[in-house]
Amino acid sequence: MRISSIEERSFLEKVLKQYKFSDEDSQLLADTLVDADLRGISSHGIQRIAWYTRMIKEGTIVPTNKIKVLRETPTSLLIDANQNMGQIASSYAMDHLIDKAKQVGIAAAVIRNSNHFGTAGYYARKAVKEGLIGIATTNTRPLVVPTNALDAFLGSNAFAFTFPAEPHPFVFDGATSIVSSGKIQVLAKKGEPIPGDWAVDKDRTVDHDAKRVEDNLSKVAFTEEQPGGGVLTLGGNREENSNYKGMGNSIIIELLTGILAQGSISADTNTGKHDFSQFLLTINPNLFGDPEIFKKSATKMFDRIRALKHLPNKDIKIPGDREYKNYAGNLKQGVFIDDETVKELKSVGDEVGVEAPKSIDSTKES
Amino acid sequence: MRISSIEERSFLEKVLKQYKFSDEDSQLLADTLVDADLRGISSHGIQRIAWYTRMIKEGTIVPTNKIKVLRETPTSLLIDANQNMGQIASSYAMDHLIDKAKQVGIAAAVIRNSNHFGTAGYYARKAVKEGLIGIATTNTRPLVVPTNALDAFLGSNAFAFTFPAEPHPFVFDGATSIVSSGKIQVLAKKGEPIPGDWAVDKDRTVDHDAKRVEDNLSKVAFTEEQPGGGVLTLGGNREENSNYKGMGNSIIIELLTGILAQGSISADTNTGKHDFSQFLLTINPNLFGDPEIFKKSATKMFDRIRALKHLPNKDIKIPGDREYKNYAGNLKQGVFIDDETVKELKSVGDEVGVEAPKSIDSTKES
Repeated sequence: MRISSIEERSFLEKVLKQYKFSDEDSQLLADTLVDADLRGISSHGIQRIAWYTRMIKEGTIVPTNKIKVLRETPTSLLIDANQNMGQIASSYAMDHLIDKAKQVGIAAAVIRNSNHFGTAGYYARKAVKEGLIGIATTNTRPLVVPTNALDAFLGSNAFAFTFPAEPHPFVFDGATSIVSSGKIQVLAKKGEPIPGDWAVDKDRTVDHDAKRVEDNLSKVAFTEEQPGGGVLTLGGNREENSNYKGMGNSIIIELLTGILAQGSISADTNTGKHDFSQFLLTINPNLFGDPEIFKKSATKMFDRIRALKHLPNKDIKIPGDREYKNYAGNLKQGVFIDDETVKELKSVGDEVGVEAPKSIDSTKES
Repeated sequence: MRISSIEERSFLEKVLKQYKFSDEDSQLLADTLVDADLRGISSHGIQRIAWYTRMIKEGTIVPTNKIKVLRETPTSLLIDANQNMGQIASSYAMDHLIDKAKQVGIAAAVIRNSNHFGTAGYYARKAVKEGLIGIATTNTRPLVVPTNALDAFLGSNAFAFTFPAEPHPFVFDGATSIVSSGKIQVLAKKGEPIPGDWAVDKDRTVDHDAKRVEDNLSKVAFTEEQPGGGVLTLGGNREENSNYKGMGNSIIIELLTGILAQGSISADTNTGKHDFSQFLLTINPNLFGDPEIFKKSATKMFDRIRALKHLPNKDIKIPGDREYKNYAGNLKQGVFIDDETVKELKSVGDEVGVEAPKSIDSTKES
């Protein structure tokens, strides 16, 4: 079914305030989830609220904690998220990196002791709105099997990169692994099979059953059980197809997040405290020339790529095209919510006395 | 066959001086090629000298030109390579970025009007030798077909990333595409088939015949002919396996190189002047804590990954493991050179009156 993003936002803000997030933090957190749903990234939208709720209850997320700036230089920030949501520290950090990049050209932040931060794209888009190149990354629960390995160890480790262009910026935003676990969750909720070679079992045999994979991943990522298997690196199952490059990309994020933050690496976040880390970077293109020229030449390159000869019945999309198209559409028609999530929202709302979005009870379409 | 790296270096330096490179530049260029061969990256070793020779003859590379620093700030450098080899500008740039990162923490360089720069890893390793995180990238000839496209447009766009560790640093160094064209060249020279799904023909059907693919790529990348087909992005032939993420990685390099340099994008380097661009970045980890702690925790993570349960008869390698092992071995046993390259070296040497490495005429083994 679909609900209006206005209703969605209002519901989320009310629930989050009940969890004792400050008004400002509740607005920010709601905005990151609504923004993901508007862009068609359901895996990072309102469906996450049930998970956030569980983590608040078990004390992994502490909504009343304030972030701490541990170290600051003209080009850098080291921040302790203080076990609150990753959105709060990351949004603060990117706002300050933008100021720094405007002054000195380049700046980076490392965030420790953090939690899930929504989509990486949210922060990289903050930078590009100011005409800057933006990078945002996070580590995650352990989900990904390295090349030739039988056990998951690496996170799906999201990576976002933005660059100014027209009619919308270039926004690359996704897991460094072949897919995020959220994408498998969404298929499992819908009862649909996995269309590609995304995950393997304990013998490293590809499994296309989303429900079975999701059940396995919930043990792999959230318990000390080591049932084996997990999500593949970009490049798939075979070393001959350079899946070690996908592993390399994933490891790079581990180094920039868990290692530089002196926090947990993804492999050690399956039990106990969550302890994610984030890394953000901005570059001011004016270090190298006129930003308007860069924007024009990037736009021209993207138009040429979109216009290349292509397979029949397919098109060529530049990263960001789908998101911005979804955004415009979903703002009008409302965001899509699957049946499983509808149930979860009712239960979450009931528990804290917040009424579920009205359209949830009235409409029934998908 | 194998020749000693000392002989290789001496031969290359003599040839390069004959081409009118300065003594210092000849030593640097020879070092980058010998270094690649020692690390087992034959695709970027001495086999490139025949190609360099052709480009010097046709005026694409101008060995006597000096690089120009166009713009400098405490965090950045914009350099004109002045149509000389990419190695010269990139080595200069990374040396200066290292100084800057020691002073202000982060620094980046863009290089325009450049040529091939050898392996990206060469510059990223310069940074890591100084305890810094190093990044080096370049665009290339157009070789890579975007997701769903039938024509090549993107470069294979090398990317290197280094991070301090023991017993050797983490060194990720490779094409952002599924493989570099050099890897296909090496198979074609050996008469071996392509072991994975690396390249497609004009209908986007995978082709495993290295010779046929190489013949096609030489038209795709070096002429105005548009025969169709090319190398795949990381992720392979199918959109369902997220090959658009591989495309995203390739486009990111296009943006950081050709676009920021106001030079050619890869698509426009197939004819006329070469005009590659490079982007380099260094981060001083001491912005975020004690570098010795980072090195220890990275080392520990790598050891844990290497020790994971794995497929029988396979092992798990961290990026850099293979290179450093090759380096130690090849320093003793000499670097491997295929028969086709042996012929090319003789012809290159004959033309400028430099004797081919002696072992080429005496030994015959592989």
